[in-house]
Order: sequence, then C-alpha cells, then structure tokens
Amino acid sequence: MTESFDAVDVIIAKRDGRRLSEAQIDWVVDAYSRGQVAEEQMSALAMAIVLNGMERAEIARWTDAMIRSGKRMDWGQLGRVTVDKHSTGGVGDKITLPLAPLVASFGLAVPQLSGRGLGHTGGTLDKLEAIKGWRADLDQVAMEAQLRGVGAVICAAGADLAPADKKLYALRDVTGTVESIPLIASSIMSKKIAEGADHLVLDVKCGSGAFMKDQDRAEELARVMVELGADAGMGVSALVTDMSAPLGRTVGNALEVREAIEVLAGGGPADVVGLTLALAREMLDAGGLAQADPAAALAGGRAMDTWRAMVAAQGGDPDAALPTARHSEELIAPVTGRLTGLDAMAFGVAAWRLGAGRARREDAIQLGAGIELLAHLGDRVVAGQPLARLWTDTPDRFERARQALAGGAIGIAPEDADSSEPASWPAAEGAPRGLVLARIGPV
Amino acid sequence: MTESFDAVDVIIAKRDGRRLSEAQIDWVVDAYSRGQVAEEQMSALAMAIVLNGMERAEIARWTDAMIRSGKRMDWGQLGRVTVDKHSTGGVGDKITLPLAPLVASFGLAVPQLSGRGLGHTGGTLDKLEAIKGWRADLDQVAMEAQLRGVGAVICAAGADLAPADKKLYALRDVTGTVESIPLIASSIMSKKIAEGADHLVLDVKCGSGAFMKDQDRAEELARVMVELGADAGMGVSALVTDMSAPLGRTVGNALEVREAIEVLAGGGPADVVGLTLALAREMLDAGGLAQADPAAALAGGRAMDTWRAMVAAQGGDPDAALPTARHSEELIAPVTGRLTGLDAMAFGVAAWRLGAGRARREDAIQLGAGIELLAHLGDRVVAGQPLARLWTDTPDRFERARQALAGGAIGIAPEDADSSEPASWPAAEGAPRGLVLARIGPV
Repeated sequence: MTESFDAVDVIIAKRDGRRLSEAQIDWVVDAYSRGQVAEEQMSALAMAIVLNGMERAEIARWTDAMIRSGKRMDWGQLGRVTVDKHSTGGVGDKITLPLAPLVASFGLAVPQLSGRGLGHTGGTLDKLEAIKGWRADLDQVAMEAQLRGVGAVICAAGADLAPADKKLYALRDVTGTVESIPLIASSIMSKKIAEGADHLVLDVKCGSGAFMKDQDRAEELARVMVELGADAGMGVSALVTDMSAPLGRTVGNALEVREAIEVLAGGGPADVVGLTLALAREMLDAGGLAQADPAAALAGGRAMDTWRAMVAAQGGDPDAALPTARHSEELIAPVTGRLTGLDAMAFGVAAWRLGAGRARREDAIQLGAGIELLAHLGDRVVAGQPLARLWTDTPDRFERARQALAGGAIGIAPEDADSSEPASWPAAEGAPRGLVLARIGPV
Repeated sequence: MTESFDAVDVIIAKRDGRRLSEAQIDWVVDAYSRGQVAEEQMSALAMAIVLNGMERAEIARWTDAMIRSGKRMDWGQLGRVTVDKHSTGGVGDKITLPLAPLVASFGLAVPQLSGRGLGHTGGTLDKLEAIKGWRADLDQVAMEAQLRGVGAVICAAGADLAPADKKLYALRDVTGTVESIPLIASSIMSKKIAEGADHLVLDVKCGSGAFMKDQDRAEELARVMVELGADAGMGVSALVTDMSAPLGRTVGNALEVREAIEVLAGGGPADVVGLTLALAREMLDAGGLAQADPAAALAGGRAMDTWRAMVAAQGGDPDAALPTARHSEELIAPVTGRLTGLDAMAFGVAAWRLGAGRARREDAIQLGAGIELLAHLGDRVVAGQPLARLWTDTPDRFERARQALAGGAIGIAPEDADSSEPASWPAAEGAPRGLVLARIGPV
C-alpha cells in the first residue's frame, strides 16, 4: 500500500525547489500511470522539474518508479553475460547493425530493444525492415531462443516496459518539457534497466544532429545516466560522440543497411568502423573479454556470420537485394574549396523530407529514400562536382530536401584551386574523424 | 485574424526565460479559451510563468487578452462616476457591505460584482444571502437601473467576464500554479477592468488569513495591479491591510451582516469602522469628492438609508431577522494573560468547519454558522473566561472547529494577574489596530 499525497502538494514542493521524497515520487508516478494524477498536473510537475532539477537520489527513485510501472525482463536463465547498447540518436547512426552481431560473435548475449524513427533521426527497426522478410516483433521466448542460438537480437521493445515513461514522454513532447537532463536520463534508463541486461554501453551524441547540442550538456547527461545505472546495480559506461556531421556516407534506411553490411564485410567508412570498434571495445570489456579483438572479427567474417544468422532468425533474407528508391538527383558543389561542414541536422531533415523519416508515428516511410554522401569533410571539392545523391520514390520531395540543405548546411571554404581532380571519399583505412569526445566510465 | 503559433514554442520561450510577444500572448490565450491549446500545455506554460515571471508589458497584454475573451461592461450611459472596490480576501472581511452604500450615499455609482466563498475565506454574496429575499443575480439592465436609483449594487459577476481567466483559474487551482504575482494580478484585474468602472480601490490583504503572507509580496502584488490599471486607463489605488487576525468580531455569514449593520448604524468594532472609512476615503477621493465626510455619513444615518434601499432593490427585507445557528458553544481561555494572537487562518478554517464556508463550489453553507469573538487582541484575559462563541446547525462540527483552533491559533502571554475582571471588546470609539500597512497610489 503506497502512501497517498495530494498532487498539488507534490507539484508545489518541486516548484518551490524542494527535494521530492521517495514516497512522493512513488505515489506521483503510480497515480499518474493510473490516471489519478491528471495530465495537466504532471505537465506542471514536469515543467517544475525542467526548471528546478532533481538530485541524484530523486532521479534514481523516479527512474525506479517508472520501471515499477511495468515489466522487468530477466535474462538469468540464459547463463550468459548480457550487454546492451543505447544511442541517444543521430543522423546516419546505423552502428547497432554491425555492433550487435560483432559483440555477440564473441559469445556475449546482446539483446537490443529498439525503436522507430521520428523526425530527423532514424530508427533501427525502420532500417532493418528494409531487409526482405525481417520481423521486428518477437516475444520474450523467441528473444531468449535467439540469444541462445545466435547471441544477438534486435527487436521492438514491448509496450509493457516502463509504460509510465511512455505516457510521460508523449506528454513532455507537447508541453515543452523534453529538455531536462533528469527527465531525459530517467526516460532512457528506465527502459534500459527494465530490459534487464547486466551491462550497458551508452553512445551519447553531441552536436547539431543530436538532442544535446553542446559537449558539456552531453557529458552531464552521460554522467547522470552512468550514475543511474550504478544506483540500479547495472554496469554502465558512456562514450560522448560527435554528431555535428552525419555518421558515415548514408542517411536513410536501406542505404544505411548497405553501409552496415560493408562494415561487416571488413570495409565501410572510417568513422562508422571507428565508432563500431570503440563501442564494441566498451561492451567486450564490460563483458569481461578484454582480450577480444573486434577489428579481427570484422576482418575475418565472424561478425558477418552472426549478422546473417541474426537476420535469418527473424525471418529476413540476408541475400535479398535491398530496396532502391525510384528517383535520384545529385547535389552539386556550387564553388571550389575545402569541404568544412556537413550539418547533421540539415541532412537528417533532408532525408526525412525525401521519405526516409516520419513526422507522426503513424506515417509510412520509404525504405529506399535518403542521401548518399559523395564527398567527405576535409576533402577538396571542385565547383560542379557532385557532393551527394538524393533518393526518393516521390520526386516532388526533391525540392523540399534541397531547401533543408540550403543556407549553411554545406560549408565550403574557398582556397586556391591547384587541381581539378575531385576528391574521393576516404575508405576504411583512411583517418576517421575524432568521433569519441569523452568517455564516462562506470562509477 | 490572429497570427498562429505552435503552443510548444510559446511554452519553451517562457521556459527559457524569454519575453512573450504580444502576438504570442494573444494567440495562446485565445487558443486556450477555444480549447486548441490543451490544458496540459497551459499548465506547463503557467508553471513556467510562476518560475520565470512576466514583465509589466507582458502582464498588461496577458490581462488584456483575458478581457478580450469575454464581454466588457460599459457604464457610459449612467452619467455618473463609477467606483469599484476589490479585496483579495480575508477572514471576517465584511467591509463591502457598509462600504458600497456609504460611498454611494455621496452620489458616486458603486457597482460591486462579487463572488462566493471557498475554503477559509467568505464570499460577499454568501453573506448577503443571509438576508431574507435578497437576490444575487441581476442582469445588466437591472444593475444599471439600481445604480441610477440607489447608487450601489452588489451582485454576482456573470460568466461572460474574462471567461479565459475562469478556465485558467480552475486549472491553476489543481496544478500548483496559483502563487504567481503576474498570474494573480492579471486574474483579478482582468475581471475588474472588464467590469468597466472608472476607478478601482484595492484592499490587498496580508498575513496568515490572506493569500499573501508577507508584506513585501502584498505590496508587490498591489503595485503590479495598480500598474495594470494604469496601463488599461483605469484609476487604481491600493491599500495593503493587515489580515493576521480576523477583521472585526465575527466570522460567518449572518454574523457578519449583523456586524456590518452595526457599522452602518454608527457603531461596530473599531477595526471594521477604521478600514471602511479608509477605503471610503480612497473611493471618494478617486471620485473627486475630497471634501466628503464618510464618518459623518455613518453617524448621520445616510449610509444606512442607502443600505436599506440597496437591499430592498434586490428583493431583500432589511428589517427581517437574520438567521441564527441552532447550537452554540463557548471557547474558554485556558490561562490568564494578555491576548497576543488570534490567527486569522485558524479562525477562517474553524468557521468553515462550523458550516460557514464550503470546500467545493457546489457545497451548501449554513447561513448562521460561524464565530463571534468575545475578546480582543491586547486584552487581558482570565483563565475560564469565554474567548469566543462558536455557532453551527450541526453540533458534530464543534470538535472539528476546536481542532482548527488548537495549537498556536490563540496566543496568550502570561503576565502577573492583577485583576479578575474580564476585559471587554473595545467599541468603535476604542483604538483600532493599525490595519493599513501601506498605500500604493495611482501611477
């Protein structure tokens, strides 16, 4: 029997900058999930939290209350160390696709409960659905069987994980109360803790294409989530990584799957490979496999074998041709110079407008739509050279995508043109961007 | 055609401490009153306003938008100067009853649109309904006729005055967003400006029985309301007055009418008389009658004549006996000493529990219930002497009222008992408490 409170008293306590008690937090989250605290009351409380914050112990209790609103998964019967990974979302972020099978190929169990894209960021499930026959919906029995057999599973999170957080997130989205580190951290971590893995590695994105625009805030979010994990008995580490430019060469579902497969085949863009290996290192270390060599597993085909088994286990045909959009156009360099900027947000919005993303949850997406980058940051580009190829099934979308890329989305710094040779994209062996900005270790 | 905005952008602007534009304010108030901004969005905005405030120009525009959501009264056809008075609400505050006819007896028109009590504060309409036959509901034609014939009218405010504020107030009440000077000031002033009087005198209460507990906040509220009036072209002045102890000797509807009639008859407790005269002075000065002598009008029976005419014009019988509660008990002084405290909030709650007030708008009240004070602040009281008489129709309420008065509600400081004579209540000729703490003149 939970102690009972008056919702207004709880709101006023936080409004006046006081710390909420454990009993107050337990009550308000439970009563909200049962509809006894009204939406307008929770939104006032959320705004008070945005403006007055929560202390570490409050955030931990809030997170725990969110978890207790639903089911908690348990992989204890599996007899394997489970390691989860979560990215706060970016543009061209297909890392989960090569990473999960790569880590699983060393014997760790990697249960990845993922979501769909909304707005300018893509969703891992949308990308995988570009593979013919692949199914996102698995029940826990099927997940567990696949973790035993293959080691990796990427599937849809059930509605029964932290349902109070789902309700709260929908409310925050329409009430201007998203931007709060305590609320963002507890929203992410309530789902991740409920998913029940032994260890978690976080990829906290930072830059124009990410929710956190500056590194200080991204590191603060990472630190709060690492602490929340520790408070819940979970081993958590975080990498803060750059999301000022799109990750890799592709933005869009089938396009990104193709790039992920290149990485699994031992190739792919240097930044995607680099970040995959950095996150794999974190996950393998967490799982006690400090000697494992993930670069060798990519080069040797072991990760690809696990990928093919994972896709097939969920009904997908790993050999089927990936969908291609019906129309394409090139984006041309207007001047000659050094390519200094590819704004992640602008490319995310452009890909979304081409049909790769959705504005509302119920919208359909175009699996083949998106953007292929044809030049890389730091390259010398020549006026008239193609910088990117835009793909869509509905050519009236090209203009809207071009508008998103107008203005300062593509930066070219003038320089003395000493060659008419177009620069090419660096391959995996090239120097990657310094993507990892900071590491927040387990506490 | 109003410019259109996204509610979330408006919320975020205030959340991030920015000033709202006139177009944003107009849009959000209008859209909220039409249900296009949801309750949970307005509550988040209200919380952001509570915590980040509004500037003078924002408050003025917000108030104006609230007024434009409904009807605005116009007394231009009356050919008389109209003077309104508003009290922010206290315990035992029956001042409107003698004040309106007193000021009207000098030829000013006094339209008083009043409300009903909720919680520990009484409502002027509830008090007047203790008079047999008296009706609170008048249409504007009847009000105007009464202002021509009698000069004073006290009646219910229609639902068409600032309806957006009514909707917002109900929301603020359940979302912990009442305590905001910008929102309180605009709520009061939107109704008062919409009521259309030429001048307004505010009685801003301060102390335990008032909404504002400390004088600084009360003065700030008064100043903001005076400025709002000026910005709307209305002449407004404010008295900040003490509400740490109940006003006068009575708390409860019929009990307070009896005390008001004593004042109109030239008697009554000194504090009630003093505050009535101070507010009358403000209203008469505002109406250009600096030479008028309100004390003489009380002493000479002129104010009483207007009272009787006002009551009769609304169907009331000024000679009918007032209702008396069926049961009474005395509250006894437990020790001998100097009476140093009569906590206004505690007495307000006690009277409410005896049946004089209501917890919800739909609750019935007992017209005869309440409290008569039998000793005054500063009096020497002797153990065993009655301090107050409690009145109710339902004697099971006595215990709940006594609980409200337990603890520190009644302060008696021990002193050498040099007399067994009980002190008596000072009459009107006695020294009143210094009720007026500050005056905020028109700007």
